[in-house]
Amino acid sequence: MSTVRAAFKVLISHPNVPAPALELLRSRGAETIVCQSVPPSRAEILQKVTGVDAIFWAHYQPLNAGILDAAGPQLRCVSTMSSGIDFVDVPEFQRRQIPLGHTPGVVKNSVADLAIGLMIAAGRHFHAGRHDIESSQWKTELIDWRMGQEIRDSVIGFFGFGGISQAIAKRLQCWDVAKILYHTRKRKENEAEFKAEHVPFERLLRESDFLVVAAPLTDETRGKFDKKAFGLMKSSAVFVNVARGGLVMQSDLHEALTTGQIFAAGLDVTTPEPLPAEDPLLKLPNCVILPHLGTQTTKTTIEMSLLAANNILNGMEGKPMIRPAY
Amino acid sequence: MSTVRAAFKVLISHPNVPAPALELLRSRGAETIVCQSVPPSRAEILQKVTGVDAIFWAHYQPLNAGILDAAGPQLRCVSTMSSGIDFVDVPEFQRRQIPLGHTPGVVKNSVADLAIGLMIAAGRHFHAGRHDIESSQWKTELIDWRMGQEIRDSVIGFFGFGGISQAIAKRLQCWDVAKILYHTRKRKENEAEFKAEHVPFERLLRESDFLVVAAPLTDETRGKFDKKAFGLMKSSAVFVNVARGGLVMQSDLHEALTTGQIFAAGLDVTTPEPLPAEDPLLKLPNCVILPHLGTQTTKTTIEMSLLAANNILNGMEGKPMIRPAY
Repeated sequence: MSTVRAAFKVLISHPNVPAPALELLRSRGAETIVCQSVPPSRAEILQKVTGVDAIFWAHYQPLNAGILDAAGPQLRCVSTMSSGIDFVDVPEFQRRQIPLGHTPGVVKNSVADLAIGLMIAAGRHFHAGRHDIESSQWKTELIDWRMGQEIRDSVIGFFGFGGISQAIAKRLQCWDVAKILYHTRKRKENEAEFKAEHVPFERLLRESDFLVVAAPLTDETRGKFDKKAFGLMKSSAVFVNVARGGLVMQSDLHEALTTGQIFAAGLDVTTPEPLPAEDPLLKLPNCVILPHLGTQTTKTTIEMSLLAANNILNGMEGKPMIRPAY
Repeated sequence: MSTVRAAFKVLISHPNVPAPALELLRSRGAETIVCQSVPPSRAEILQKVTGVDAIFWAHYQPLNAGILDAAGPQLRCVSTMSSGIDFVDVPEFQRRQIPLGHTPGVVKNSVADLAIGLMIAAGRHFHAGRHDIESSQWKTELIDWRMGQEIRDSVIGFFGFGGISQAIAKRLQCWDVAKILYHTRKRKENEAEFKAEHVPFERLLRESDFLVVAAPLTDETRGKFDKKAFGLMKSSAVFVNVARGGLVMQSDLHEALTTGQIFAAGLDVTTPEPLPAEDPLLKLPNCVILPHLGTQTTKTTIEMSLLAANNILNGMEGKPMIRPAY
């Protein structure tokens, strides 16, 4: 504690940052200057940021030289409250040698729950079933009506096998799945824990009963799930995307769902976001779509905010960020 | 095999019975007489049932003296393809000493998947989120928008701790839940396996973050979840019912969801079924409703049909039903 200055100023860029993070900062000597505009107003931020020692960046608008210049040379450190940092001009931080933190890792639990919810909701006709009720088409007299896919005995495939996929795989260890396959970077060290097998992309497509996408959007992954990829998948396959909409050629997915090339899809992410109300995917009975709610739980949001606050506290003490962004 | 008659006749009451069950019966010497009407026609059944040795009852219309009389005195055994047998006049079977089988147990896996899907879908705003997209209300600028409940660190409560609840509890063993509580019949023998604790009803209500109903509808359980029960639950609680609609006072549930007494509900069962399209529950953003899809998977339906077929094969060999209904 002795190395923390008696009082320092932290700009909080959004009024909805969870209270525990603000309380933590204040308990360690911070004066918190909280922006009130929703959506965040750049003008308000540029005005209030002047003279602060640290910035808690809680939204996804550009964080760049303009903000750093407005803050002034006394600025000691910055943390985002986000896993992805595509809205940050990282080279500018590097050039100025300003420590930058972010909050990866802690999002994995809430996203994993949601991904399994999407596997089941898509595999078991949650959307179509609701529509059946609302349109008085609930069929009680058919045995083989709205038959769905079970997770038990299924091959679960992951595109990307980082923290989120591993959190999903961990949860499915007690579900009697047949096999866990994954593609992209080989993670030999994690295979035994999750009984997971690294396979080529084509084999992942051909063998997966449930295929979950949880990989970063990069030049290599952009548009990876296209007509050719869906064409290799099982007609009984359930496709889930909790990563970024850009990994999927959305019109090819629409076609695969319409023609029965695959069974169903569950999407927490789309292109664009927000998805327009008239998007053709919203017309499909076998597509469950959410408005990017992966990290939207109180528990995870608090954990993200506390990690961002602790990044800043470390920065103020001259220690490395807990989760440095560069 | 030698005790099976060279040929015997089995009435199949519905045309959508899975092929593997028919193939099994035929491979063991059965002539299968398959009713073709959908919904099943009593007239067709009464006509075709005459002279059969066994009945494979694959739908939920009354199975009573009228059917048994029409079959004739050579009838050796009957199996339903269902877990519940509320549509069967069981005393009539007992009086005539006709073996009756059913297919409990095998439904647990598909219902357990669905129940966890409902926990997540209700806890994470799947219905409201969809509505947000369709009504162009997707809010990207709010941090605390559509905040949901995570399963991790939660108290999972079960009303009823039979096969279905245990299948759910088994799946959740790898989810880092805080505690598993249950009420109704004490099952000391299962507590260690699932780290489950038997508690009084009031404590189940007060402590559960997710409360799953998976108990039979009886005189004791009818209307058990009423205004008083919901009044004891947490305002953050997610209520899931995969048992029977009759366990819940539906207007009290509606009120609890409207007033914020509880957080959300996920229902696979309602009163009545089919639920009318104008039911007030369908207006609530925090209520996920399915048209009773718990057992609707190919795998489970095939398992149910094979169990029914094996009940009949046992009956034809003079052995006890594998799963006797009385």
